[in-house]
Amino acid sequence: MSEENNIIYVGKKPTMNYVLAIVTQFNNNVDKIVIKARGKSISKAVDIAEITKNKFVQTATYAKINIETEKVQGERGESNVSSIEITLSK
Amino acid sequence: MSEENNIIYVGKKPTMNYVLAIVTQFNNNVDKIVIKARGKSISKAVDIAEITKNKFVQTATYAKINIETEKVQGERGESNVSSIEITLSK
Repeated sequence: MSEENNIIYVGKKPTMNYVLAIVTQFNNNVDKIVIKARGKSISKAVDIAEITKNKFVQTATYAKINIETEKVQGERGESNVSSIEITLSK
Repeated sequence: MSEENNIIYVGKKPTMNYVLAIVTQFNNNVDKIVIKARGKSISKAVDIAEITKNKFVQTATYAKINIETEKVQGERGESNVSSIEITLSK
């Protein structure tokens, strides 16, 4: 498989869809996955990471957790939104 | 001031209330503050940390960011909820 980091963008799908995508990648010999989310999806990203780590891939650990602020273009101009990047590796 | 870590629990109040509480503590010579949140409040905790760091206390850095799962007693028995702890220090 690719040696690049694999990135999962968390959006409006159910939590378990993302967990399944991550577990599938780990089973395909990817050993580092970055979960990215913005705004209200940040809570879901943390759920996804914790469910993956505690229930499905017990050998996974958090290599890095970053939070930052991104500028987003919206209907009413530019605004700031918080984001999180959780790097899971096994 | 106390040398213990100061803990801010994020709940239903507006984001800026928590930011103000943190800025006030930093101004009172506290140099390490832990922001804790669970479930849906996790996104708000990240907003609070980023606003504090980017707009009010530019010397602050993230000493540690932890995520984990806690067991919570609810009306329908025990359930799991994700939590975050963001340690800001200046």
